[in-house]
Amino acid sequence: MKTNPHFYPVILAGGRGTRFWPLSRKRRAKQLLALDGKQTMIQQTVARLLPLASPKRHWIITNGDLRPAILRQLPKLDPKQILAEPVGRNTAPAIGLAAFLLLRNDPDAVLGLFPSDHVIGEPERYRETLRQGIEIAAAGENIVVLGIRPTRLETGYGYIEAGAADANGSLRVRRFTEKPDLAKATQFLAAGNYFWNSGMFLWRASTLANALREHLPNTAPILEKIAAAFGTRKFADTFRRLYPKCENISIDYAVLEPRAAKGEGLSNIFCLPSDFGWNDLGSWTSLHEHHARASNPADGNLISAAGSFCLNAKNNYIHAPGKFVAAVGVSNLVVVETDDALLITTLDQSQDVGKVVKHLDEKKMNELV
Amino acid sequence: MKTNPHFYPVILAGGRGTRFWPLSRKRRAKQLLALDGKQTMIQQTVARLLPLASPKRHWIITNGDLRPAILRQLPKLDPKQILAEPVGRNTAPAIGLAAFLLLRNDPDAVLGLFPSDHVIGEPERYRETLRQGIEIAAAGENIVVLGIRPTRLETGYGYIEAGAADANGSLRVRRFTEKPDLAKATQFLAAGNYFWNSGMFLWRASTLANALREHLPNTAPILEKIAAAFGTRKFADTFRRLYPKCENISIDYAVLEPRAAKGEGLSNIFCLPSDFGWNDLGSWTSLHEHHARASNPADGNLISAAGSFCLNAKNNYIHAPGKFVAAVGVSNLVVVETDDALLITTLDQSQDVGKVVKHLDEKKMNELV
Repeated sequence: MKTNPHFYPVILAGGRGTRFWPLSRKRRAKQLLALDGKQTMIQQTVARLLPLASPKRHWIITNGDLRPAILRQLPKLDPKQILAEPVGRNTAPAIGLAAFLLLRNDPDAVLGLFPSDHVIGEPERYRETLRQGIEIAAAGENIVVLGIRPTRLETGYGYIEAGAADANGSLRVRRFTEKPDLAKATQFLAAGNYFWNSGMFLWRASTLANALREHLPNTAPILEKIAAAFGTRKFADTFRRLYPKCENISIDYAVLEPRAAKGEGLSNIFCLPSDFGWNDLGSWTSLHEHHARASNPADGNLISAAGSFCLNAKNNYIHAPGKFVAAVGVSNLVVVETDDALLITTLDQSQDVGKVVKHLDEKKMNELV
Repeated sequence: MKTNPHFYPVILAGGRGTRFWPLSRKRRAKQLLALDGKQTMIQQTVARLLPLASPKRHWIITNGDLRPAILRQLPKLDPKQILAEPVGRNTAPAIGLAAFLLLRNDPDAVLGLFPSDHVIGEPERYRETLRQGIEIAAAGENIVVLGIRPTRLETGYGYIEAGAADANGSLRVRRFTEKPDLAKATQFLAAGNYFWNSGMFLWRASTLANALREHLPNTAPILEKIAAAFGTRKFADTFRRLYPKCENISIDYAVLEPRAAKGEGLSNIFCLPSDFGWNDLGSWTSLHEHHARASNPADGNLISAAGSFCLNAKNNYIHAPGKFVAAVGVSNLVVVETDDALLITTLDQSQDVGKVVKHLDEKKMNELV
């Protein structure tokens, strides 16, 4: 199957990933960490897209704190296409800018939107799904979302409610839902036509540009002006000056939900059921589960250290590179050590690690965030 | 009350204290650590004895691994009186050697035997008890043991069973017992005439010398020969050559138990009931309890670190100097970090930390022990 030569990956890499503190920091966010193997999350993201798009067709949208590290990690990408937002304005302006930038040189551009910090267990199946989605997106004013088949009760994700199957091999999207409570999540899992919203979307740049003009009429012209300055000496200044004037809104709220509200038959939003070992690694706990599935360690202990000794210790995630670790009589702990910090929590409560970063932010302990 | 001018403290400082790993090491044993305040345990031991005996009357018996650090920590003591055993031979030969050494210059010497790694909460009461004990010891062929009034069920100590009160203000010792099981410990606590064996003894050097000649007839002459060489150029060589020939036996087995077996009225062993805030700091857990009693910290968390943030965390002991520590949703943990090691255990299981050192010994990971 040939890949559409007009396909451009746009990778969003501006998040902080605070739940991986103390490893993740403002200048070393989750996507810049090698949480799963030798490559960092963003290097893996690019690597698995390269068979579909050459380096020069990749775009990354990040911020000034992270751009220097991304440049170092991805030396083959065009530095001009690694954009640092002067301020964060959520996803709608970021993706919109990418659409207007692509349209300057390629009216047939198909834009794929990708988070930079997810794990894909089966890259070949992932690319097959993408190829299929790119075809659907290229065929008209369509929006394609990759929906992950739920494998467990999960209240931490948004869900996609799918409707009728379409001739193009996807399912028509009926509705996007917020993160459900446990009762709803149970219902969703049982129903069979609900999928996790992966945050991966495919659409023609022109489709997206038109959607922005329709749904964000004030922001779209600003983005067009910024895009028009790209490649000139005025770009940096224009970007810095105009971008803060954009609405601060997610693409979900700005475009997808109102578009879906037009109704299953009219919205042209399609869900591609996806099953390629996706994992968003949302916390130390999901990282522990991911690695434990892969390596099936004795007693469930995952320890990265210079050496270790476990005595009556089970199911712990311990990261203390360079140290000898002794775990005696402890279970279900997460312990992560860096040069300047030590986190001690449990597999049950590791999602609260973001609150540590919030505390450090509030106390202006900038050297630790 | 005047102190007997013939009183000589002999401090045993050859133990490893492996239960304080990773802080304690072969060359930095528990007694060399500042576990309770700014002074190390051995510095505190000497400091609280100084009102009873000048520096030049202190003797320390240790080993070659620890002697250099002890010399640095106690610069006012006479280096010649900080003896390093060429090999460990348990307590009987160590104390016996001290007795023969003291007798060379002072036939009226009263020898006080002291561990080097205990905490004394009330040093003034401690010295009052010692003054009383020194008088009893000096008055004849008596052996005085400081017996700690039990304050809890404890199966980790040896006990002293006391009998009739003596005119000298102490209780006659009926028997020394091994560490009891829980049922026996309960019985001991209820009975009221059982005391914890503190390991602190007082006796005339001549009493001890005679006891050794009686109970260890092969070892006593060896110790006398070594003592005779003290102060000469041959001492180091004599010590190294002869000391290994001594029996490897504790003073309890060699002298105290057989002597007590002579019967309450004949043994001349006296127990001084003692109540001066004694704590042997046997583990991280007892250190946690000791500090928690003293400082009564919020939520029972004791954290020595560059900074810390606790969220839903209770009753943890965390030592990570120089780091910012975040504890989220964890309870009753002991976490101790050094340059090269990280220990993670619980207050319930910290007595098993010695097994980590045993493992490291077996694996010949010498740099970690």
